Amino acid sequence: MGNVRIIEIKESVFADNDREADRVRGALKAQNTFLLNLMSSPGSGKTTTLLRTIEALKDDLKIGVMEADIDSDVDAEKIATTGVKSIQLHTGGMCHLDAGMTEQGLQQIGTEDLDLVVLENVGNLVCPAEFDTGAVKNAMILSVPEGHDKPLKYPLIFTVCDVLIINKIDVLPYFDFDMDKVVEYAHRRNPKLKIFPICAKTGEGVQAWADWLKAEVRSWQEG
Amino acid sequence: MGNVRIIEIKESVFADNDREADRVRGALKAQNTFLLNLMSSPGSGKTTTLLRTIEALKDDLKIGVMEADIDSDVDAEKIATTGVKSIQLHTGGMCHLDAGMTEQGLQQIGTEDLDLVVLENVGNLVCPAEFDTGAVKNAMILSVPEGHDKPLKYPLIFTVCDVLIINKIDVLPYFDFDMDKVVEYAHRRNPKLKIFPICAKTGEGVQAWADWLKAEVRSWQEG
Repeated sequence: MGNVRIIEIKESVFADNDREADRVRGALKAQNTFLLNLMSSPGSGKTTTLLRTIEALKDDLKIGVMEADIDSDVDAEKIATTGVKSIQLHTGGMCHLDAGMTEQGLQQIGTEDLDLVVLENVGNLVCPAEFDTGAVKNAMILSVPEGHDKPLKYPLIFTVCDVLIINKIDVLPYFDFDMDKVVEYAHRRNPKLKIFPICAKTGEGVQAWADWLKAEVRSWQEG
Repeated sequence: MGNVRIIEIKESVFADNDREADRVRGALKAQNTFLLNLMSSPGSGKTTTLLRTIEALKDDLKIGVMEADIDSDVDAEKIATTGVKSIQLHTGGMCHLDAGMTEQGLQQIGTEDLDLVVLENVGNLVCPAEFDTGAVKNAMILSVPEGHDKPLKYPLIFTVCDVLIINKIDVLPYFDFDMDKVVEYAHRRNPKLKIFPICAKTGEGVQAWADWLKAEVRSWQEG
């Protein structure tokens, strides 16, 4: 299997990517644009959460959305209904976005007039966590039906994220999901992780998350 | 980013893996052992489905389970309570299993006396679909809370699987999940896909899936 060669390539890919990510962040800072990288499993509610977040922030911030998917345009079409700028990025089978792909998306959407760009990453708890996209902050969604043991099984993503949104709290009565345990397990991976329980379907809890995000955008712009 | 070099390495990795997977299958055939590769998103209920499947088949088949996870032993501990042979495979951050890793697991568990070995792959709809593990059949679980649009977004896994188990049908009333649409989208990717709606929590629908699996094991052993 030539493992040594693969590992060498992988290390060089990561080093190249980190440099490129820093370059992307620098360019965004120069024009006062904040990039949020939003990650989660497939079906945890990234797009619905984004729709609610846009609703809460679109009077205050100029927002753009980049929807990454292996295939299909279903998410970008939903986002377009809100009136914010949105584009679909097809990864062609790739399981994550790296800084180079993110930069191509940023050029395509045009960021000069935007305060906030949200990158909806490929639905995957593993690979996206390994690649710095150039985002200022990383957020992830874990939905109640996925279970409270996920920080034990997918440690890296909980470590690299600044925010954990716990979505679908409306179905808590129908699942064996222990909110105290997920908070404990997640903080074991990352004591600084901010946690926002929400229901994107009804809007419950979304305001606190949106307020946090807006404060982060303002602090980046003024910093 | 040296994309050309990475693509060359990737192609050679896939070709090596395919050869190794065929070798693994040949060795299993020689001793009448059937390997099932079970894939899904994180939190779709792989382990609970496996517990029910073992319950339905353990009087007829000698079963072993290999639990692949990036970290933690929570799944292998649950499987061990059923009395079947089980081991935990830690991938050390890897997002999938390839044939070489699967072969190491098979050697560790010891397959000479087993009719059926189930490999519970890493929770991920993208990367595991790219690597032939040496399994005789591939199955995937999609759970109701993940949504019926997943065959549109993650096409490859629906193409490479022989079976789609639709889990958590007990919560259908609480989610906007269209069973007709998911069947249509999945069959568009793969017209031969067998589909079993189940609720692993209550056991509903599990017998039909277990019967199919038992018939496949017997046909492999007699073929």
